[in-house]
Amino acid sequence: MTPRVLAFDVFGTIVDWRKGITRESAHFLARIERPEIDAASFADRWRARYQPAMAAVRDAKRPFVILDVLHREMLEAVLTEYGIDPGGLDRTLLEDWTRSWHRLDPWPDAVEGLSRLRAGLPVVTLSNGNIALMLAMARHAGLTWDAILGAEVTRAYKPAPEAYLATAAVLGIRPDELCLVAAHHSDLAAARRAGLLTAYIDRPMERGGMPAPDRDQREQWDWTTNSLIDLAEQLGL
Amino acid sequence: MTPRVLAFDVFGTIVDWRKGITRESAHFLARIERPEIDAASFADRWRARYQPAMAAVRDAKRPFVILDVLHREMLEAVLTEYGIDPGGLDRTLLEDWTRSWHRLDPWPDAVEGLSRLRAGLPVVTLSNGNIALMLAMARHAGLTWDAILGAEVTRAYKPAPEAYLATAAVLGIRPDELCLVAAHHSDLAAARRAGLLTAYIDRPMERGGMPAPDRDQREQWDWTTNSLIDLAEQLGL
Repeated sequence: MTPRVLAFDVFGTIVDWRKGITRESAHFLARIERPEIDAASFADRWRARYQPAMAAVRDAKRPFVILDVLHREMLEAVLTEYGIDPGGLDRTLLEDWTRSWHRLDPWPDAVEGLSRLRAGLPVVTLSNGNIALMLAMARHAGLTWDAILGAEVTRAYKPAPEAYLATAAVLGIRPDELCLVAAHHSDLAAARRAGLLTAYIDRPMERGGMPAPDRDQREQWDWTTNSLIDLAEQLGL
Repeated sequence: MTPRVLAFDVFGTIVDWRKGITRESAHFLARIERPEIDAASFADRWRARYQPAMAAVRDAKRPFVILDVLHREMLEAVLTEYGIDPGGLDRTLLEDWTRSWHRLDPWPDAVEGLSRLRAGLPVVTLSNGNIALMLAMARHAGLTWDAILGAEVTRAYKPAPEAYLATAAVLGIRPDELCLVAAHHSDLAAARRAGLLTAYIDRPMERGGMPAPDRDQREQWDWTTNSLIDLAEQLGL
């Protein structure tokens, strides 16, 4: 049971989205003269719209659009929720705010861990993030991927089974030769149902210490750890 | 006139396909007990079927298939040309022979040159090769890409205009912010027609010293050099 390729969830698994989106949103909230809004709550509300936004694509209620587009729509919806009319804001500012997701920082173990894993096996993204987003983030965070795969390549958002199956197909390997590395039980459960191997990375601070909404989907995963460096050791890499 | 992203042709521009395919084919020709066949000629005949094979997809005579599939069909056709029935050969051997294109070596300046270019700008593939092929080749040759783009992502084979335009779109940039780096005038001419910047790398040994079939399409490209290291200097990287 050795994977031939490691595929990574990214938001929450590799990068700390909450800290980054909080920092960026604090900056932009100050720029639009609403510094009194709590930036961490703003970040949580923005992220809360993530699954519903992708569900519309997964359920074929709308054609596939990349995550940059969904992030922009979600931002406008959250601003409206706070009583701010996004139509009254500068377009360039909204675009830059949306690209906050391109500028997230890695968890402390991610750069070294990924580098060690990559020395032994190909490492690819299997994120719902689009290619330009993943590329910009990788350069910002100092991450090196062998390939950026995921939603824009497969035209399917996780946890749809095609997202996992089409990624294995693109790599020219069987699903059981591909291991998903993720901090989310729901993602790993869907990957396992599609026949993938599974590695769980515990990221207790992803939601600032709040319990994971998918904790009831916990299973005995093929590998379990709290750091990519330790995962490399467990895999003998 | 500074590019925001560098997109690379790969076969001939980054790797020496003729030397690699000759070496690999000599090995497989010996294994099928036909060592008397000249392996360099075999390589040239295999490659000669490249444009016609892709033309069928470009002209919508067949649905998009990845280059690994075309390479396999082209191999079987060349074997037949030499009076060898591919149906009589071991399937695993044919698969391995097809994957010769995954194991090509870089030109002497490619690894250092690409590394220097990547320190300053994102570097992506814009090759007709599929993702698994490009990934395996990059690991074999020690190349690091920020993203593997090209035919499998855009579902278009160069020199179709969509191949260039959709690559810029995926990157979230304008065509004139993307520079194609290639050793082939025909590729650069199509890229320029699509609005891209163009950098020509002279690779006189790509066909073992034979003149390029597209030499009549030579133009004054935005940059011209015979090494990626020099290109980095010309770009001030």
